[in-house]
Formats: sequence, C-alpha cells, structure tokens
Amino acid sequence: MIAASPATPANYNRADAALIDTLRGVVGADNVLTEAIDVAPYAFDGTAMLKQRPACVVFPTERSQVPAIVKAVTSAGVPLVTRGSGTGLSGGSVPLDGAVTLVMTQLDKVIEVDTANLTIRVEPGVITMKVDQEAAKHGLFYPPDPGSQKISTIGGNVAENSGGLRGLKYGVTRDYVMGLRVVLADGEEVWLGNQCVKDVAGYNLRDLFIGSEGTLGVVTEVLLKLLPRPQARRTMVATFATLESAAQAVSDIIARKIVPCTVEFLDQTTIRCVDDYANLGLPLDAAALLLLESDGHPAVVEEESAAMHQALIDNNATNVETAQTVEDAERLLTARRAAFSALARVSPTTILEDVTVPRSELAAVVKFIAGCAERHNVRIGVFGHMGDGNLHPTFLVDERNADEMHRFEAALEEIVDETLRRGGTITGEHGVGLAKKPFLRRQLGDGSFELLRKVKQALDPQWLLNPGKVFD
Amino acid sequence: MIAASPATPANYNRADAALIDTLRGVVGADNVLTEAIDVAPYAFDGTAMLKQRPACVVFPTERSQVPAIVKAVTSAGVPLVTRGSGTGLSGGSVPLDGAVTLVMTQLDKVIEVDTANLTIRVEPGVITMKVDQEAAKHGLFYPPDPGSQKISTIGGNVAENSGGLRGLKYGVTRDYVMGLRVVLADGEEVWLGNQCVKDVAGYNLRDLFIGSEGTLGVVTEVLLKLLPRPQARRTMVATFATLESAAQAVSDIIARKIVPCTVEFLDQTTIRCVDDYANLGLPLDAAALLLLESDGHPAVVEEESAAMHQALIDNNATNVETAQTVEDAERLLTARRAAFSALARVSPTTILEDVTVPRSELAAVVKFIAGCAERHNVRIGVFGHMGDGNLHPTFLVDERNADEMHRFEAALEEIVDETLRRGGTITGEHGVGLAKKPFLRRQLGDGSFELLRKVKQALDPQWLLNPGKVFD
Repeated sequence: MIAASPATPANYNRADAALIDTLRGVVGADNVLTEAIDVAPYAFDGTAMLKQRPACVVFPTERSQVPAIVKAVTSAGVPLVTRGSGTGLSGGSVPLDGAVTLVMTQLDKVIEVDTANLTIRVEPGVITMKVDQEAAKHGLFYPPDPGSQKISTIGGNVAENSGGLRGLKYGVTRDYVMGLRVVLADGEEVWLGNQCVKDVAGYNLRDLFIGSEGTLGVVTEVLLKLLPRPQARRTMVATFATLESAAQAVSDIIARKIVPCTVEFLDQTTIRCVDDYANLGLPLDAAALLLLESDGHPAVVEEESAAMHQALIDNNATNVETAQTVEDAERLLTARRAAFSALARVSPTTILEDVTVPRSELAAVVKFIAGCAERHNVRIGVFGHMGDGNLHPTFLVDERNADEMHRFEAALEEIVDETLRRGGTITGEHGVGLAKKPFLRRQLGDGSFELLRKVKQALDPQWLLNPGKVFD
Repeated sequence: MIAASPATPANYNRADAALIDTLRGVVGADNVLTEAIDVAPYAFDGTAMLKQRPACVVFPTERSQVPAIVKAVTSAGVPLVTRGSGTGLSGGSVPLDGAVTLVMTQLDKVIEVDTANLTIRVEPGVITMKVDQEAAKHGLFYPPDPGSQKISTIGGNVAENSGGLRGLKYGVTRDYVMGLRVVLADGEEVWLGNQCVKDVAGYNLRDLFIGSEGTLGVVTEVLLKLLPRPQARRTMVATFATLESAAQAVSDIIARKIVPCTVEFLDQTTIRCVDDYANLGLPLDAAALLLLESDGHPAVVEEESAAMHQALIDNNATNVETAQTVEDAERLLTARRAAFSALARVSPTTILEDVTVPRSELAAVVKFIAGCAERHNVRIGVFGHMGDGNLHPTFLVDERNADEMHRFEAALEEIVDETLRRGGTITGEHGVGLAKKPFLRRQLGDGSFELLRKVKQALDPQWLLNPGKVFD
C-alpha cells in the first residue's frame, strides 16, 4: 500500500513572497508574473470549462535556469505545473490554486540538425511545425502533426505523446523521441536516451517520461529521430451514404494490406459545420467523409492510390475526388484540419473526447455514438483518425444549461463504457489530465492503476509536479 | 536516498523444502527439478564464464500457474530468475545461489492472430521465428529477427528488447510490443497496453517492462503488432580493401536517403573464420564485408538496390555480388548468420560484446577496436549491425590464460570508454545482465542510475526478481 496523495489544494503550500523573490532572482523580474490580470491567460488551456489561476507564472529564458526553478518550487512544497502553448485538450496544464506555472515557450532554440545520424535536437518550446520545417531544409521529415501543430510546442507534444493525421503509417511522438533532458522533482537534471538507434542499457525511462503529462519531471531538451522525406504524396476524399460503408472501406483497405499515411473521418454533423465554416462545397447529404493520403516512392503512391480508390468504389463510395495539385490537396486537407474549429463555433461549449478502439471495433463504436446522441438528446459531431481507431466525439453543448450538461455526462459515461468494453482507451492522444481523470481507474483496473501511483511516488515523493491530474 | 539493495546471496533466503513442496503443488512434481544434475543446464545461458546453479527449476504448463509461483517464491524471500531458452548473451538468466529459476518454454501457445487489427497474441515461450511463421500464413510480417531466432523465445526477446538484422528499417522488439500481461513481484497480474494503436491513458509502463531483463515482473502474454509482408527483397554482398571505405559506403547510403532493411558488417577476422566454418568462398583478403538487403515494393527494391550498388562502387567496393535467387540470398545471409558460431569455435572462450554508437561514429570505433586488439595483443573479430551502429567485438580468448584475460579486460575497458566518449551505449541489444553491469553507472551517470534503482525499489521492494543484475 502506498500513501494517498495530498491531492487537495489545502495540502499544498501556496507560492509566497519569498519563493517569488527567489524565482525573480533566477529568471529576472520581467519573467515572473504574479498580478491576477497577468496570470489569467495561464488559468486554462484548450479544454472547455476548466480554469484555475496560478499564483505565479515563470518564463525561463535559458535551459540552465530550469533546475534552480524546480528546486526552489518543490523545496517550498508548492505545486509546479509546466506548459507550452496551452493547446492541450484534457486540462493537463490547468494549475492548482497557489501553484507556480512554468511556461517553456521562450526555450525555443533548434540546437542541432545532424544529417549523418538523421536527428534533430531542440529546446522544448520549439513549435511542432518548425521541427518539420527545419527537417525539410535537409530533405528530412518529422511526421507527427497534431491538429495544433502551428502553435503547440514539442515539449507539450512529448508530455502528451501527441498524435496527428499520419499515425497509421508513421506512429506518434513517442516513435520519434530518442532522448530527453529532464529536470526531476528535486531539481536534478538527467539525460534519458541518446543518439544510438539501439540501446538496452538499463530501464527505458525515456518512454516512461513521454506521455507522463508533466507529473514526473520537466523536459528541457528533446532529441528527435527524422526520416527521409517522402518523394510523393497523393490525397483523396471519398463520401459515403452510410457510416457503415465508410467504416467497411477502411477495414477493407487494411485487409488489402495497404497502410496509407492518413485515413481521416468526418461524420455528417462535422461535414455540415466544416462546410458552413470554410465554404468547401462539401456534399451536405453525405453520412461520412474519408480523407485519405498515400505517400512515399512515386510508384508506390501510384499503386496504393489506385488500390485505395478501388476499395472505396467497392464499398459504395458515392464520390471519390483525387487531388491533382498540391493546392488541391491542401484544400481537401482543410476540411479535416478545420473540423475542431468549425464545430467549436456552433455552440457555447465544445467538449472534445478522444476515445480510441481497436480498428475492427470502429464501425460499431461510431454507430453507438450516433445512437447515444439520439437517446440522450445531445448534439455530437464525430471526426478523427479512423486509421488509428481514434475518434473525437465532440459534444456541442452549453455549460449554462444544467439539464443539457447532465445529458452530456450520461452520454459520455455510456460512450466510455462501450469503448472500454470493446478493448479501447479513454484517450488516444489528448492525455488524461483533469478531463479524463474520472475514467482512468475504470480502464486500467486497480492493479495497473496502483502501479502508476507507485512509480509516481518513487519519482515525485511530495506529489508536487502537476498535482491533481491523471491518477491523483 | 534509497536503501542499498541486498545484492549478496547471504541476504536472500534459499529455496527450502517447504517452498519446493508448494511449487510442486502448483505445477505438479514432474515440473519441478531440484537434483544437481537436473538443474545444471539452467546454471548458465549463452554468455561465457558465468555459471551458478539454481536451487530449483520450475516449468509452468499453464499461464494461470505463474501468479501462484511468483507469490510463493517472493513470500519466502527467495530470488526468482525467469528465463526462456537461455540464449542470452549478458548472463541475464544466470541465477543466484539458492534461487528458483522459472522456465517459460512450455507456455508456447499462439493464442490469436487478428488479421483485422494486424496483431498476434502469444504466450512467452513461443519461439521467435514461429511468430513470423504464423504471421506469414496470413501474408503478415514480424520483423525482429535476433541471431538466436530459431531457438530464442519471444518472452526473452521482450525481456532483453532484442534486435536483429532488420533494425535499421524496422526497429527492434519494442517497436512491435502493443501489450503485455505481467505478473508483478507480489504475484498480482496486470495488463499493460492493449490492441489500440494509440493510447495515452496513464504512464507507459509497457515500455518500462520491455528490456527490464526480468527485474520488474514475469511476462505471461505478449500482444505484438504485425506489418504487411514485404512483396520483394534483394540481397547483396560487397567487399572492401579497407574498413574506412566500408564505413564510408554505409554513411553514404544513409546520406543518399536510402534506408535499407539490413546493413551488416564482418571484419577480416570474422570473414576468415566464417569461410573456414561454412566454406562460402569468401574473399579472405578483404578487410570488410557488407551484407545489404532492400525490401518492400518491387519498384522500390529495384531502385534502392541500384542506388546502393552505385554507392558501394563509388566507395571503392572491390566486389559486389547481388543474389539472383532466394537460395543465393540465403547463402549470402549465411555468412552473417554464422558469424558468432564461426568465431566461437576458434578459441576456448568467446566473449561477445555489444557496443553501439551513433552511426556517424562507426568508422572511428571500428578502427579503435582494431588498434586496441593490436595494443593489447588480443584477438578480436568484429561483426554487427552497421546500419544501427551496433557492433559485436568478439574476443577470442582462453579463460585458463590469466595473462590473456587481463589483456582482454584492459582492452574492453578502453573500448567501453571510447564508446561512451562518442555518445554510445555499452549494450545495443544484449542487455546489461551480469556481464555489462560493471559499466552501467559509467554510461548513465549517477542521476539516471539512481533513478533506475528508485523505479526498481518501487516495483520490487524486496529486490527478489532477478537480483544481482543490471544495477544491483
């Protein structure tokens, strides 16, 4: 048995004047915010309804300042919450009352691109898209492209193990992290991993830190693997009269041993919102839209695209459009990239879920969600990474309407249970944070859940790093 | 600070008659060995010079027996060492005196091949090669192919995070493990991971257990990812008059953005031993031999092979031979697959090292090893996974010759230091075990080393799972 965590604000110290002075000494007075109006933007992230102001916000300007910051904060018994751009969708960077928020956005140097070893070393505040842009200068490729890639930081991506549109073929952030420099709870700095493509010396703590949502340490440097840039790419969009035929088309593509780069899905609600938002001329009567992309060697792309096209036709696609130019492809991708924004503007409160199931269960779960929306009379738009089994059921509600919020909660409970019953997970790429915390034990079972807590206890015995999140 | 581990035999209990009776009750008397002559084969693995008989050897015949076994052994304060076929090359399954050895080879069922989700679920005792053979029946592919694949078990591969000849393009065992059923030190059984291709719910403990060398728990089930089987494959062998030109050819291939499936290396000592062993007609005056393989779509293989051929010629290969038939390819592969066996027969004691460096450092390290052999007057054959920067310097010595063993130790010290100086690791795929234990702290530094021990302490507070290994 391990001790219960002190996961209530009353059990932590608040950042006091002495601590704030110490922090000013480390980063300079200009880089510490304490006024209510100044810290307000750091009270929330991309997640609806979750908000709590920190006592103090600190902006390190040099990596070397981070150990002293962490040591000062944890020595004072004060909670520490680390964040990048705050695009998270599970409330992972919403602080506790009295906490110090550490904002990593000024640590944004690209340290090295190593073309002999196909790696890039960056500070955690580098914008995700910039990693790929730097890689591209050398004909290289950083595949993970979360929806927030234009503003999210790579440090945040590591903390959440972010996915993106290319997960099916290229995997997620974890698959590209070779090494991390991490500041531990006591302020000690360690390197986990290295530039070797194979290494079995000791436990793999690098992978433990990836996706640990800021609860085990603060990442101050990231070493990433790069790939040769694919030579060719082809994008296509298909529409379907039923959800089942779209899902069947995806299963069929996989069964034909094709692994496309991208297989994305939009349901009718999402199609209509996107078209209303971006005027793309989408077919408003379609029940489902698939966005597919093949990349790689031109001959492979040619063949794979033709085979995908055939599978789409064989599964009763009502229309298939293949991009003829790069601009065309960008326009088709826009439909998917705009999904969240398009849905977010149609209701006061947008709650984005992130359930993921084995691919074979996708059609059943999509159908279940549609039934759930009807039974509970809530509006749900569904889009997501169909090739990964990763769906984003998006609740379009109004948090001021208590009755509707109860109906939302009842529907969400059912969706979570159905997901878990089918061997799925409560979160494919957004993290547990605050938003999914009520469901984690249900997914893991008591044994695994307690195991997580034992690891946390071992690495952060005061439970001060991003407290109140995940399992806390 | 954490307590020192009780890493001396005197601090553990020996398996006594009561414990042995309990174990017989769980698995049946026939499946428990205690006689000295019967347990002798379980005193060692594939590693030279390391040997210690266990008190008792237990063979579970059903997965469901494992929790009771683990609980009985750890409750009695007795060390537990888990092993498969015992092909390990770091002494990872050599027991402590008085320990119980758990042999997983009878748990060898293929539980499920799921062609919709491209996964296979197996018991830990399944032979590595059988995993790929089962996959092949469905047109699927399990890439990791450690040298021992014909006899090693998949459970052992998971414990060591085994590599193989296809690491450059396809990665290692870790890249294919989606889930593990694990029995923890207290006998509790948990699932880590699942069939979802994306999952960020809680810490990634699955990856912590992969490569943990039996020190954190006992794996009782493995869920693996499969890929579509590559349609085509082409194998070629090139010889070089100098080590430098071979190394430069590899760098050049990578710089031309080609990622071959396999890039293996043999030095002159290894070439001569292999030819003597297998009569392959290899050029005995070559300083280096490269074995290269391209696989995938036929058009890609065609193009990639041509580009590799050009790079080899451009870098002064003295000869390039491309396999025209499958039999041809097998013959060429034999040269590499036979390397360890061929070296092992030329001296009484064969000590296989496993240093790995960033690819850009390869040529320098290969040259350093050659110099080291000369300076210390020890015979070293070098072969390995050149594309991964993973070298196997193999010392051909005689353990009865004390002077030679001192020279071996001095040479090894220098090679380890040089490897670490160049950002490398003491082990790319064999594990730390007993053999590399003296060097782990040197590689990790005190901070990371203590972090490993904290995780161990949290998950196995009595330090009874495979004690005396890795960091213990």
